[in-house]
Amino acid sequence: MKPSIPRGTRDFGPAEMQKRQYILNIIRKNFELFAYQPIETPAMENIGTLTGKYGDEGDQLIFKILNSRIHESKNKDVLKKEFDLSLESSRNSEELTEKALRYDLTVPFARFVVMNQHNLTFPFKRYQIQPVWRADRPQKGRYREFYQCDADVIGSNSLINELDLIALMDKSFGELNIPVVLKINNRKILAGIAETIGAPDKMIDIAVAIDKVDKIGQQGVENELKEKGFTKDQIRVLYGAILVHGGSVIYGDSLRDKNNNINSLSALVNGTEFGKNETFRKGIDELAYLFNNIEVSDSKKFRVQFDATLARGLNYYTGTIFEVKTNAGTFTPSILGGGRYDDLTGIFGLPNMSGVGISFGIDRIYDVMEELNLFPENISKTASTQLLFAHFDEVTQSHCIKLAGELRKNNISCEIYPDVTKKLGKQFDYANKKNIPFVCTVGSNEMQSGVYALKNMEKGEQQQLNLTDLIEFLKK
Amino acid sequence: MKPSIPRGTRDFGPAEMQKRQYILNIIRKNFELFAYQPIETPAMENIGTLTGKYGDEGDQLIFKILNSRIHESKNKDVLKKEFDLSLESSRNSEELTEKALRYDLTVPFARFVVMNQHNLTFPFKRYQIQPVWRADRPQKGRYREFYQCDADVIGSNSLINELDLIALMDKSFGELNIPVVLKINNRKILAGIAETIGAPDKMIDIAVAIDKVDKIGQQGVENELKEKGFTKDQIRVLYGAILVHGGSVIYGDSLRDKNNNINSLSALVNGTEFGKNETFRKGIDELAYLFNNIEVSDSKKFRVQFDATLARGLNYYTGTIFEVKTNAGTFTPSILGGGRYDDLTGIFGLPNMSGVGISFGIDRIYDVMEELNLFPENISKTASTQLLFAHFDEVTQSHCIKLAGELRKNNISCEIYPDVTKKLGKQFDYANKKNIPFVCTVGSNEMQSGVYALKNMEKGEQQQLNLTDLIEFLKK
Repeated sequence: MKPSIPRGTRDFGPAEMQKRQYILNIIRKNFELFAYQPIETPAMENIGTLTGKYGDEGDQLIFKILNSRIHESKNKDVLKKEFDLSLESSRNSEELTEKALRYDLTVPFARFVVMNQHNLTFPFKRYQIQPVWRADRPQKGRYREFYQCDADVIGSNSLINELDLIALMDKSFGELNIPVVLKINNRKILAGIAETIGAPDKMIDIAVAIDKVDKIGQQGVENELKEKGFTKDQIRVLYGAILVHGGSVIYGDSLRDKNNNINSLSALVNGTEFGKNETFRKGIDELAYLFNNIEVSDSKKFRVQFDATLARGLNYYTGTIFEVKTNAGTFTPSILGGGRYDDLTGIFGLPNMSGVGISFGIDRIYDVMEELNLFPENISKTASTQLLFAHFDEVTQSHCIKLAGELRKNNISCEIYPDVTKKLGKQFDYANKKNIPFVCTVGSNEMQSGVYALKNMEKGEQQQLNLTDLIEFLKK
Repeated sequence: MKPSIPRGTRDFGPAEMQKRQYILNIIRKNFELFAYQPIETPAMENIGTLTGKYGDEGDQLIFKILNSRIHESKNKDVLKKEFDLSLESSRNSEELTEKALRYDLTVPFARFVVMNQHNLTFPFKRYQIQPVWRADRPQKGRYREFYQCDADVIGSNSLINELDLIALMDKSFGELNIPVVLKINNRKILAGIAETIGAPDKMIDIAVAIDKVDKIGQQGVENELKEKGFTKDQIRVLYGAILVHGGSVIYGDSLRDKNNNINSLSALVNGTEFGKNETFRKGIDELAYLFNNIEVSDSKKFRVQFDATLARGLNYYTGTIFEVKTNAGTFTPSILGGGRYDDLTGIFGLPNMSGVGISFGIDRIYDVMEELNLFPENISKTASTQLLFAHFDEVTQSHCIKLAGELRKNNISCEIYPDVTKKLGKQFDYANKKNIPFVCTVGSNEMQSGVYALKNMEKGEQQQLNLTDLIEFLKK
């Protein structure tokens, strides 16, 4: 049997793990600096908790787990009968499967907040770093299992939270050294447009369609809207708001020209019929507040843009929406997404809990950093073992256990060559392959004298040291 | 809808997470000190990778995931037809489900080693900290989702690896401050017994049965063995080896009396008919080597015992087996398990790769530490935010963003009260509930003067500081 892993999933070896931990450590440190507190939720949720939050397309991508009572039956006939019974007594496959793997961290977070509402201090700021699963078609930058790193605050509708999240993004991408563009839009603008064109219940359809403009082009968006029942007139007016100046996308200028940016937002309000719609105006006002108050450390490396075509596919967003892409290299998928949801906990029985959050996609951040060569050069060296004990037989090998114990007491990472062999060359070769900088050879003479031979593998130099001096030397 | 989570799964809030991270940080630090390197594998494996490795009872507990092509069909009739077709063309439910959630980290590790054999340096030492899933009946100390923290070395049959793992356990449980008993046995002893009583192919049946002696008693073990087809005579001789001295279990004395321990092992060889069996003798020799060379830091807190009834339920063990329990409090399940497997990679096409490893059960370690009150007293304080900015309106709140940015540049964790409110009392209350030690109040006067009021929440003292002094003060 030749082993394999499921499509769209990956193994991470030591070299990849060191780089992943480098990214995660920076993000986790910043989450804590910004006072988000850690939580974890189970990989499995009840299916009812997840469905209906991600749009129809999202629902299709939820991985479902077979009920134990069915998969515990080994007999084929019993299995078939149970399945048939389940199907007859139910509308769909729910009786066959009650649990599913989480699709994101936001919905489980909302469920967590409702279940633990009496033990939490609101507004509640949490971070969460866990894998999620999606039965998506695997391709570059799209995996079936990937990590999300989320920061959310719930129980406050103040826009200060958006500003705080933008500062968090700025600091994190700055420390990762990734040049990025943060695109911002507001779902209220989309809702206002939907209201203005007489389709107030179709905001999600519009969002899902225009979110794809980068992938399927303007014509594709138009076709999708027609399929969803929009008239030619509606589409024309919709385009007036979103795609102006001969079809090109309105981009605000970068922060370096704040006034221009705000002006283009105001023009959108004053120059069109949408300006009369209250929801639309509210969206524009919220955006203007953000652009007036954003502070970023380096506006060349962290650009901020208003993008009227930004929609995000998820059902639950109601206000600000965020998306981050890098503007260097060839990597096009977004590396962060987020937004404000005014009533995600309402479905679970706790209304009036506005929240806002962002989600770092560390698997894609990894891909970007690899392409742009942004990992520190010495990343593998700093993480490796400091010293290998080489030996000649069972007796000298056992002696190394004591020596290793003393080094480890002093926080010096070390290992004993794990096989009994007289071949020193093999042991030095192992140290070389693993980038271990020092080898200490322990023979019977060294055991008796208590003085050991320490070799610097890079320089080739060798010196004689007793245990105390060896420890002092390696501590430096 | 009242939300809930699947039985046997748990949410972890900030207070629990701080304690879990405390445990994980100690174990991870020691894994790295002992030169194990991190890897991660996907949550989902192909079902064929997992089945047949955990015994019949284990196989029943594997969570299976519905194939996408089936769960993507919403139509009931299509679903039923697909399922029927699948069943007819297959012996069992494999066509319905091809992927399953990992049951432990050892089998995925073996699969990883085989797939990556050309990129790894052997002997390969890895650690892995990830959740596993088992469709077990939930009860105290038994969850359907729990973390395993594994350290394994593969590609070496030297017993030095067992000694190194024992040193790792000693250091880790010592730093966690948990008094434990490490029980050791060797599967070769069980194999030798099976050979001696004329049932060489039934070693696993014996292991599975006697592993339950703590739960179902000697009579229960006897009944189970009878059901498995063992004769009265076979059971009598089996008991002669395992349960001697009138049915009591042979425990070696603790390490404080090494000689006694080794003597009782030798007595087992010389005094019985098993001594003639080569496999049995090899098992005894390996155990004796370990007991002769074990070094522990404090033999009162880390006791080591030979336990002839220790068997572990898993199919793949072939040599040393380990189990750790605490000997304080009322918590009886094991908190660590492990052992040597001589040919786990053989099934995947890479023979002759002996490995040995251990798995810390941090969920159970958590339960033990809670019961014995072993977490540091100040654990919640050290992890919380250092400072809260209180304010009065949108303008003073926005000003806090700049101040917070300066503090965070200096690695001071802080937050801005996330709502706009004139009520200072509410903001101080929030700080109290969250254990935040300092509150800095920012009104329009403070904004103008650049001098801020800093309150020590525990002592009630207040002082006036400019930003530079504020940062210097908090850095201490």
